[in-house]
Amino acid sequence: MGKTKRIFTLLLRLMAFAATLSATIVMVSSHETASFFAVSFEVKYSDTPAFKYFVIANAIVSIYGFLVLFLPSESLLWRLVVALDMVFTLLLGSSISATLAIAQVGKKGNSSAGWLPVCGQVPKYCHQVTGALVAGFIGLIMYLLLLLYSIHTILNPLLLQKT
Amino acid sequence: MGKTKRIFTLLLRLMAFAATLSATIVMVSSHETASFFAVSFEVKYSDTPAFKYFVIANAIVSIYGFLVLFLPSESLLWRLVVALDMVFTLLLGSSISATLAIAQVGKKGNSSAGWLPVCGQVPKYCHQVTGALVAGFIGLIMYLLLLLYSIHTILNPLLLQKT
Repeated sequence: MGKTKRIFTLLLRLMAFAATLSATIVMVSSHETASFFAVSFEVKYSDTPAFKYFVIANAIVSIYGFLVLFLPSESLLWRLVVALDMVFTLLLGSSISATLAIAQVGKKGNSSAGWLPVCGQVPKYCHQVTGALVAGFIGLIMYLLLLLYSIHTILNPLLLQKT
Repeated sequence: MGKTKRIFTLLLRLMAFAATLSATIVMVSSHETASFFAVSFEVKYSDTPAFKYFVIANAIVSIYGFLVLFLPSESLLWRLVVALDMVFTLLLGSSISATLAIAQVGKKGNSSAGWLPVCGQVPKYCHQVTGALVAGFIGLIMYLLLLLYSIHTILNPLLLQKT
């Protein structure tokens, strides 16, 4: 029973690591050269602070996820991992929200602020940002599952011993 | 000792409730009529999906924070509160990030997307959004403190009993 659980959480962590790593790579590699009335310009993720934040957050969470994979199962550090999981889930969720907010303006524009949608000009760039968002979102769901699982296993002994 | 801790967490929850409630109110009441070349238009929070999300998230967290204030200290539901605190902190953090991302574009614009800064035209509106963000941020910090405190008190008995 204990072994199945360990394999289950390890699989979740592997998938979370893969998701955040691919979110980082897809976002970093997103760029497109668009031409607009004979003026050509390049759009990159680094033009938008929210996208830079997304890359940094996903890179940090990927490094953390990679390191945790090699933590031996007897280590006392696992108690710290619950707190760290929480902090990094928060970081991931906040970076996805910021990116989503900007991507929504890019797709639909904002008429009251006079911001026009730009996805028509740079469709490939928009698709890549959407892909990065989906990957980041999958990573977030994995970390949420891990967190709920940790809370479940932590609360169980407390419920049994009735403090 | 137990009583001091209870008063401390109650104070934190009261402050968190006050912060998220004021964030909601300040954001909902934010609007400004700007005139631009004899054309006058009104900007409201509901023009921007990210701001609507901010209002909804802060309202939900306020209601939750209000209800928790009346939970008797002997209740078994406190174990659930840890998980709920986590979920609502995530919600709050994500709404603040989305709002911050849009507010940053409003303040500085985004030259690669051709979005111009709008805070020059609607300074009062911008100040209100900033105020709502600050209040939301204070609420987030309170909830983070509560979460870290919960994790600390939950992990402590586990460390002592050495499972």
